Amino acid sequence: MNLPGKLIVFEGVEGSGKTTQIQATQSWLREILSSTTPKRDVIVTREPGGTQLGAKLRSLLLESRDEAPIFSTTELLLYAADRAQHVEETLKVAIASGTIILCDRYTDSTIAYQGYGRGLDLNLIHQLNAIATAGLESDLTIWLDLDVKVGLARTKGRGSNDRIEQEAIAFHRRVQQGYSELARQDPHRIVRVDASLSESEVRQQIQTILRQHLAEILR
Amino acid sequence: MNLPGKLIVFEGVEGSGKTTQIQATQSWLREILSSTTPKRDVIVTREPGGTQLGAKLRSLLLESRDEAPIFSTTELLLYAADRAQHVEETLKVAIASGTIILCDRYTDSTIAYQGYGRGLDLNLIHQLNAIATAGLESDLTIWLDLDVKVGLARTKGRGSNDRIEQEAIAFHRRVQQGYSELARQDPHRIVRVDASLSESEVRQQIQTILRQHLAEILR
Repeated sequence: MNLPGKLIVFEGVEGSGKTTQIQATQSWLREILSSTTPKRDVIVTREPGGTQLGAKLRSLLLESRDEAPIFSTTELLLYAADRAQHVEETLKVAIASGTIILCDRYTDSTIAYQGYGRGLDLNLIHQLNAIATAGLESDLTIWLDLDVKVGLARTKGRGSNDRIEQEAIAFHRRVQQGYSELARQDPHRIVRVDASLSESEVRQQIQTILRQHLAEILR
Repeated sequence: MNLPGKLIVFEGVEGSGKTTQIQATQSWLREILSSTTPKRDVIVTREPGGTQLGAKLRSLLLESRDEAPIFSTTELLLYAADRAQHVEETLKVAIASGTIILCDRYTDSTIAYQGYGRGLDLNLIHQLNAIATAGLESDLTIWLDLDVKVGLARTKGRGSNDRIEQEAIAFHRRVQQGYSELARQDPHRIVRVDASLSESEVRQQIQTILRQHLAEILR
């Protein structure tokens, strides 16, 4: 029997450790899945920038700019365009072939950043998410919950900050509040992980969650 | 008294002569308006590509591609993003300062090309047009009506054809049908001009229409 794949999304504020944890999760899952039947691939992807077109949109969106600012609605539509391409070109194909997808940001980011952060109309965002995803929702969203100041301090260690990271602290606090709201509203799909713990403790928590969620596949 | 500007849009299939007629109209209007009070500017702009960001989106949209195709929904969202930026950065500002805007393509192009041409859901397109324009409609749309084959033959004379021009003839016929439908539904806003006539005859027709439409400004 050919089970469809899974879309597992990692969400959280800047510096919450998504990239590190996604890489660790991929290695761990690949090792476990190497002994299961049927063979399943585990891929890592991201939004924005999961496709070739998306990579170009990502640089338009994240590069700091001297020219005219990107207006909020433009930004929202560009994220939606990136998502539409990603869903059609990458995610649907991977799901159909039984692949486990680990995706760095998805629809909840748009709600948290553009909705709560920028204050854009949430109905509008839901409309655009529906258009861009054509109904493809995450099977599980792992929310790495971290205090905004701690996260931003971590990103400063990386050197140059992008256009989003440069937003005022109040913006990032609203984003954080957005994630809290989303987790409260949809506790079945969104699972909170305390990202203030050590890297290996966070990794353990994620593995526990995935062992439960993927029980049917990992057994 | 400071009257607001006007948004005058030129629409039509490939090769219908929009660019030539827009340039001629700008020269003509500038000359007439040089003797009126208050002074009014006449600007030419276009979609996609009316802003710096839009110019980058325009090349993503129109360049022929070796990489993965742009999916229809992605394309629709990119046009909407270009439009949102154009409306906020250029059109609203110009209208507020009393400028006459001559715009090469606007919302009706999206309905004709993505709706009728690609067969995307018209409700979806109306939703996205509403989001991108924030309600800014054209005051007048001049539709240069030309047989699709004649138009495409004209564009072949220009050398290399872009991604849209390369679409099959059936696609362009559906686009043409879209324009007919729109003109039928909204005869007050959309005025048809027979673009098979000579360049100077078309120019005369456009001037007659604009003298009527801009009577208050040109008097």
